[in-house]
Amino acid sequence: MNSPLILVTNDDGIYAPGLRHLIEILNNIGKVIVVAPDKSQSAQSHAITLDKPIRCEKIIIDKGKQLEFICSGTPVDCIKLALSKILDKKPDICISGINHGSNASVNVIYSGTVAAAIEASLHNIPSMGFSLLDHSVDADFSHTNEFITKLTERLLKTKLNCCLNVNIPKINKNKPIKGMKVAHQSSGVWIEEFEERIDLEGDRAFWLTGKFVNKDISENSDHNLLEKNFVTVVPINHDLTFGEQIDNIKALTR
Amino acid sequence: MNSPLILVTNDDGIYAPGLRHLIEILNNIGKVIVVAPDKSQSAQSHAITLDKPIRCEKIIIDKGKQLEFICSGTPVDCIKLALSKILDKKPDICISGINHGSNASVNVIYSGTVAAAIEASLHNIPSMGFSLLDHSVDADFSHTNEFITKLTERLLKTKLNCCLNVNIPKINKNKPIKGMKVAHQSSGVWIEEFEERIDLEGDRAFWLTGKFVNKDISENSDHNLLEKNFVTVVPINHDLTFGEQIDNIKALTR
Repeated sequence: MNSPLILVTNDDGIYAPGLRHLIEILNNIGKVIVVAPDKSQSAQSHAITLDKPIRCEKIIIDKGKQLEFICSGTPVDCIKLALSKILDKKPDICISGINHGSNASVNVIYSGTVAAAIEASLHNIPSMGFSLLDHSVDADFSHTNEFITKLTERLLKTKLNCCLNVNIPKINKNKPIKGMKVAHQSSGVWIEEFEERIDLEGDRAFWLTGKFVNKDISENSDHNLLEKNFVTVVPINHDLTFGEQIDNIKALTR
Repeated sequence: MNSPLILVTNDDGIYAPGLRHLIEILNNIGKVIVVAPDKSQSAQSHAITLDKPIRCEKIIIDKGKQLEFICSGTPVDCIKLALSKILDKKPDICISGINHGSNASVNVIYSGTVAAAIEASLHNIPSMGFSLLDHSVDADFSHTNEFITKLTERLLKTKLNCCLNVNIPKINKNKPIKGMKVAHQSSGVWIEEFEERIDLEGDRAFWLTGKFVNKDISENSDHNLLEKNFVTVVPINHDLTFGEQIDNIKALTR
């Protein structure tokens, strides 16, 4: 493949440093087309826009060789619009991120970053969502280059029809990353602790906060491998059928 | 169990006929608490509200014995708020719907109805999302009673820790429903066909439309069983790990 076509999006918005960094990395690998949200679409999961039109325009943000489009929709809208209206051929790969913050464990379900990658995989495009375990807007992404480059080049080469959720530990000069490991989604849950405030009009308003509780003690869970300073790679299935439960459920339907 | 506590939500909004019908059915089974969106949240998937506060107030809509709360958030926000701020004990079951329109096959990924049920199951609450294969606002829900009552009573009895995506064919007096079947999520995809229009300001705007393409020929796929006039019940897994791909992916990480 001479110059692979790489479709890029994210959920933190087109100006997010994580996306800008990703574009720089991918410009070295192929022809990059960015279709990304005009604002943060964090935790928008697989939401799509049905009740209003989506706006999408070409934009130049920096001097990189990528082509960019700014879009009023969700990350999944961006992928749908790119495939249907922007690209004139199917991309060789779709890459989403780099998300500011973890998408390991149950976070994957809420993630717009990973949902965009899942959407691409529904159209049989190999895809990856990358996330850094650092929420900060000025997070250091420099150590991600090695892993993103390796995985992208290898996935382009093997053309495996898969969707990968990749999480990368925060940089720590004293604790180098140990390598990459294939993992499974850690079992865990967010325990909500809504903050209740009275707004200016005297009404009650609830701000969603919460605490993540890991429930997985297995060695190969993404949460636990990230704690040990590995980059984790979880293959994602868009078939949600819980196969193991099929027989148990039969008694309910008789 | 004397009077089970039943948490109810939907994604079409608290005034949707599908939800009103569901409440009527469930009032015969237990103590119903409704926490539902104040507007349509269709296709909001597992989205949650992080960038603004959520408003939630008690409301009386009809003369039923249920307690109801109207909420400015997504279906998943409704479940989180209910569990954290509204209910004083864990519900025995969580039921979402009845959705106006199919959530079979890949629709499940976009569905706010099913996402709410998945959220409950993350908290170990047996849950079901019900959908009728009729988008119409004045759809006839009368034939759903039998199936919803049976499944709810049986799930309450068995206390199986599961999340079920239940789809019910549209009523057709000449073609009675053949029964309920456990199914798997049909393989399929939406092929987008954005409608492009020029808005009042002269800008391009894209409206998402599309066509569903079924790719599953197996007898036990939900799409195919619905075509044969069965009610389909698919157990849903919130662990998205694609287990079968784990070995294939290992080569990418070495």
